[in-house]
Formats: sequence, structure tokens, C-alpha cells
Amino acid sequence: MRNIVIGQSGGPTAAINASLAGAYHRAKELGFDVVYGMHHGVEGLLREDLIELEPYLDDPEDIEVLKRTPASALGTCRYRLKDYREDDSDYRKVIEVMEKYDIEVFLYIGGNDSMDTVKELSDYAAEHGLPQRFMGVPKTIDNDLPVTDHCPGYGSAAKYIATSLKEVMRDNNAGDVHKPTIIVAEIMGRNAGWLTAAAALVKSGDCSGVDAIFLPEQVFDMDEFRRVVRELGEKGKPAIIAVSEGVRVADGRYVCELAADVAVDAFGHKQMSGTAAYLCGLISSEFGYKTRYIEFSTLQRAASHLASRTDIEEAFDCGVAAVNLAVEGHTGEMIVMVRDTDSPYACHMEGYDIHSVANLEKGLPVEWITADHQMSEAYEHYARPLIQGEVLPIFVDGVPQHLLIGE
Amino acid sequence: MRNIVIGQSGGPTAAINASLAGAYHRAKELGFDVVYGMHHGVEGLLREDLIELEPYLDDPEDIEVLKRTPASALGTCRYRLKDYREDDSDYRKVIEVMEKYDIEVFLYIGGNDSMDTVKELSDYAAEHGLPQRFMGVPKTIDNDLPVTDHCPGYGSAAKYIATSLKEVMRDNNAGDVHKPTIIVAEIMGRNAGWLTAAAALVKSGDCSGVDAIFLPEQVFDMDEFRRVVRELGEKGKPAIIAVSEGVRVADGRYVCELAADVAVDAFGHKQMSGTAAYLCGLISSEFGYKTRYIEFSTLQRAASHLASRTDIEEAFDCGVAAVNLAVEGHTGEMIVMVRDTDSPYACHMEGYDIHSVANLEKGLPVEWITADHQMSEAYEHYARPLIQGEVLPIFVDGVPQHLLIGE
Repeated sequence: MRNIVIGQSGGPTAAINASLAGAYHRAKELGFDVVYGMHHGVEGLLREDLIELEPYLDDPEDIEVLKRTPASALGTCRYRLKDYREDDSDYRKVIEVMEKYDIEVFLYIGGNDSMDTVKELSDYAAEHGLPQRFMGVPKTIDNDLPVTDHCPGYGSAAKYIATSLKEVMRDNNAGDVHKPTIIVAEIMGRNAGWLTAAAALVKSGDCSGVDAIFLPEQVFDMDEFRRVVRELGEKGKPAIIAVSEGVRVADGRYVCELAADVAVDAFGHKQMSGTAAYLCGLISSEFGYKTRYIEFSTLQRAASHLASRTDIEEAFDCGVAAVNLAVEGHTGEMIVMVRDTDSPYACHMEGYDIHSVANLEKGLPVEWITADHQMSEAYEHYARPLIQGEVLPIFVDGVPQHLLIGE
Repeated sequence: MRNIVIGQSGGPTAAINASLAGAYHRAKELGFDVVYGMHHGVEGLLREDLIELEPYLDDPEDIEVLKRTPASALGTCRYRLKDYREDDSDYRKVIEVMEKYDIEVFLYIGGNDSMDTVKELSDYAAEHGLPQRFMGVPKTIDNDLPVTDHCPGYGSAAKYIATSLKEVMRDNNAGDVHKPTIIVAEIMGRNAGWLTAAAALVKSGDCSGVDAIFLPEQVFDMDEFRRVVRELGEKGKPAIIAVSEGVRVADGRYVCELAADVAVDAFGHKQMSGTAAYLCGLISSEFGYKTRYIEFSTLQRAASHLASRTDIEEAFDCGVAAVNLAVEGHTGEMIVMVRDTDSPYACHMEGYDIHSVANLEKGLPVEWITADHQMSEAYEHYARPLIQGEVLPIFVDGVPQHLLIGE
């Protein structure tokens, strides 16, 4: 066997390194000679910034630490290849580097944009009769890649959000009875509400769940929001509302953009506030209720200390499957997860034509959103299995150990 | 034996219920007949809102779940008793309720203000020759109670902060090389920098640590901050700065107050921004660097899923010690932790005159802050033992189980 190169691209997740670990492990098992990592994605490959992975991963425990390391251990990029029909210089360079380093397989772990890179490269190779093969491994906390039942990275982010919201609810419910607070929690997901929907997973035997969830799949109706706030406020009890950062009003503007006409920051610059901060401003100024916003920010995609075992194992297996298929001669495919059964939950991996995946986004089915701003049972059946189990960090000196590559 | 009542007061922590668990467990062991909880602190007791705890805690597993439940399971309050020399109605009511329910011991778990309640009640009882006994159990993520080596709640919050910052750093370091981002992370602690100092615990074998730490124990010099930012920006690499929400400039104003002259929110109201948000505005408007703020908000005090085992066990033991001493006849004392040795780390609990504790704050020694905005080794020796070990949540349906009392 010759060599293989693996890259990571787009926004990091808690599971993206598990796919790297799976791909590396399987590649060595199948006898690839050298497994290279692209330092900061295809951009790194273009400047021949490749890292031999074996020195970092020669001990089985290294693989375990890598699976527990958040963000892209190889470094990420957001580089989009030009259209090769107009300018094929990047493509020629990719092939040149692959030939120089005797690399026959290019594996790319990423989201929508990254899958476009795989598509373009595999199309280019096919048109030019080149032997190099290009495979995609899905990764995104946004869970918005089509065809696949769900995406590695989603389950861990969902578990973190559900756990943290449950803890914040305990904190809020235990508070001073004279100051019931309406919390607005802002959750990532510009265009798809998958991650915000995970707020529904808070609901369990010992928790009544969040009071309302607002997703970008529906127009954000400010008057309906006011109605919900008024109803919660009149109860005089602590409450919590989950909103996606991507909610928009009827004219298409993001809620966070509504601030820009009026709000200025301390330096006199027009300010686009956070969605939750804006809504808390509304609650406080129009209703006078005590309110507090919570932004999970990058915590929600980086929290490896609270990863879902299901997610990490599947991410690993997606890496394995990509190597298996590449060795069998596949190219121009992304690994997809196919759900076999809900209960017991079971999925298997397949390769799928990258042309049906790249540049497409899968929104959450709107029929899963109930009229009272909750998620239906269908979502519960879909998502609950994905947050099952834990992968515990390996703690050294009281904090989780991480694996560094090329730093 | 007769009865005992336990209350929780002030801001919640991840460890406050472990003290409740310890006190309950020991009280039953020593043969107290009924263990009552005050529903929302002394305010609940004043309106006779008491909860018999046994039905909630009769199974040993309940105790384990309680230890893993964030925030005050009994509910909290921020009620401050009036000075009994001016108005003793609250005091007479407390004694009346204690007599009515045959309660001989009043145990209060809380921070500075709560210890004042214990002091006033025990003074009142002493002056009137009353037999009821009043004991305090320390609790605060701020770690600012005097005499005690440290406070239950601090270790868990510190562990959460160090872990989360380390993950955020991985995320930031792995990012797009064209957009190095300077993150400003805002950490709780109005007057004492203990919690923000925990950012220093990020530093470990696989992590170089945060780039700068700013604590309220030193005047916040805006020009020095600019110098640090310029130096970091010129390196062209991702960076992270930890700031306490309580930093103030030379004229005594909080940094977060500096915004108020200019900034208005979307509703035209003067806005006091967060400290980190303000500083990010400065970085972006004066230097043009990419920046992002992170506010840990209530997450840092509620994250039971990442509690320190050392902290939870000590919190439990503080509850036990308070009951032991009360039974021996002590009153008007707070439990303090005395450090016996640093390595191996060992502490024991003692009772301490509440008059030397209540209403006093312990700041972090300024000599532990180095000229380059890091923490000295003395802090490392002090704090590292406090974040050792983990208490894992009991997960049900993928999220941690919590114990609810009186809800």
C-alpha cells in the first residue's frame, strides 16, 4: 500500500478528532505506509504542510486521547477551491503534492463546504483520468448535511446543551423567589434548528423541560414571542426560553440584526447584539421582568469533556468506513449513517455519491415543531439515542488531557 | 434527640447540596428525629415553609443524586435579617418556629451574608439565654470567606473554568490561520479574583496556558491592557485573555460601567455591557483584530457534571462537621477548613467563631499576581489540589439526574 492524507475543515466539533482517530487506526491496520495529516486543511496541503501522524499516534493510548481532544487536532481552514473549469491551479497542485508524497487517498472530514471540496477534486480527477481517490467524512454540530441520518458532532453538542440547560434551570429555579428570572439561551445554528432543538432533551423524569423553543425553520414572530413572555411572566415563576442564533423576522432579517438601527457600543459603533441579548433587552424594557441571557458560544462545539459515547464511536466508525471504501476503490463519496432501527437504536455506514450531498442543507422538519413551541415526540425518538453514553476525559492535574499534533 | 433544620442561602454552587447531603446523613446517623429543610432559606423558615427531608432522601442513592445536583436543592434566598437591637420580630419568629417544631439546631449553608444571619441569630440567642444553636457551613464559588483555607464550591467552579477554557483554547488554536482571534473570557467574582485566577490552572503538560489574567485585586490599567493586546496581536496567533467581571479602573468604576456613557441597547436604553464584551469592542475598534468574548455566566456555578471530587467530598464533610459540633454543644461558629499539608494535600475541619468570619471578604494575595499577568507558583500550589478528582453524574436518558426537593 502507498500513502493516505487526512484533513479537517470548517468549524471544529467535539467528535471530529474521533473520525481522524478512526481513519488513522484503520489506515495503519490496512497497511498504508504513511498516514499524513493536512496542517490546516487543504490549504496546508497546497503549501505542502503535511504532518506524518505516526509519531503522534504510535501508542494506543494516544488514539484514546485524540478521541477526547476537542476541535481539529490537525488545524482547520475555510478555504474553498476555485472552480477548476476556470482556474485549475489548486487542483494541479493537489495532484502534484499527492504524487510527490505517493498519496493515493485524500480523506476530508468536514461539513457542507468541505464536501464541495471533495466533490470538485473527485470530479477533476475523474475528468482527467487520474487514479487518486477522494472521500468525505461528515462532521458538523449543525447536523445539516443531507442524506445521512445525522452528523458526527451533533450528538455531543446536543448532550452538552441539554446537560448545561438542565443545570442552568436548576440554578434558576432555586433562586430568590422575589426575583423570578426569564432566561434566554442562545444556541448555534444559522440556518438549521437541529442544535437548538436539543433544548427539548432537557425534559426528563426530574425536569419539566424548557418553556419555549424558537427555531430558524419558522419565521420569528415578535408578537408571538411577546405573548409567550407575558404568559410566563404572569406565572411569576422562573422560566427559560431557547432560541437559535439564526431566527429571522418576516422580512428576512436576523433578530440579532434588529438592534443595529439603534444600538451602539461603547465606542460609538453600530452594534449587532446577540439574539438572546436583544430579546432580553426587549423583555426587560417592555415588560420589566428580570431577565438574563446565556450564550453557549464556542463552548457548545468544544466541550469534549461531555461527549456522547454514541457520537464519538460513530465518528470513529465513519473514519474507518471512509478508509475501507477508499481501499475498495470508491471515490467521490461521503460516508452517511443509515438508521436501521430506533429501538434498540442501530445505524450502519455507507458511501454516498458526493454530488447529492455537497452544498445542500437539511433543515429540521417543521412538523416536528409544535404550536406551543416545543419539539414533537418524533424529534425525541430521533435525537435521544444520539446523546446516550459518555466518553470520559483522561484527567491529568485535574483537567482533561488533549493530544496536540504539529504544534 | 430532637430536630434539626438546614437551610441554603445566597448564590448556588455545584457543591452546596453535598453539604446538605453530609449534614442530613450525619444528623440521621446521630439520631435526630426529624431533619427539616428551610424552603428558600430563612425566609422560608419565617413563613413556616419547612420540608421534612426523609421522604426525599430515604434511599442511599438519593444522597448520591443530591451530591450531584447543582444549585440549592432547598431553594435559596437573599434575605438579610434586620438588626435585632432595632427590630427583633424576625428573631422572635425564628425562635417561635424552632420551638414549635422542636428544633434545637439551625444549620445555614452559605456565603458572607448568610454567615451574618448565623452570627445575628446566635448572638440573639446568647443574649436571651436561649438553648437553640446556630452553625454555619461555608459555600461560595467566590472563595472569599476569611479564615477557612478555601470554600466548598470553589474547587468545582475552578475545575469547570480551567477545563472549559482549555477546550476553548483548543478550538481557537485550531482555527483558520488567516483569522487569529483574541478571545476575552469573563469570569465571575465582583471583589475577589479567586475564580478568575483558576484560568491559570489551564496550564499543563499539553497547554501553554492563557495569555493574560486580570483580577480585581489590581487596578485595571487600560493602557497596560492595550499594550498586552498589541503584543498579542503582533504575534499574529490566536490568544486568550481571562478577566474578572469585577475589574475596575483607577477612579473606581467597573470596566463594564465604562460603556454606559455611550452605549445604548436596541431599545434606546443606556447599556452596561459585560466586561469582556466591552474589552472586545475596544480590541476590535482600536486594533482591528478579530475578537470574541465568552461569558461563563451561571454555567460556572451550576456545572455539577464537572465537579471536583475533592470539593464535593469536602463539602459533604463540612456538613458532617457542623452537625457533629452542634451536637457537642457548639453554636455561633462556621466550619473552616485547615490545610495540614500541601503534598500530599490534606485538610481537616474545625469550628471557628462566626464573629471573625461574617461580613468579611478574603481577597487573593496580590503577591500571587505576577508582573506579566499570570499567577505565581504559590497559587498553583494552593489551587491545584482543589480540582483533583471527579464526581461523575448519574446519567438517565443521556442527561444527568438531579434530585428535586419540594417542587
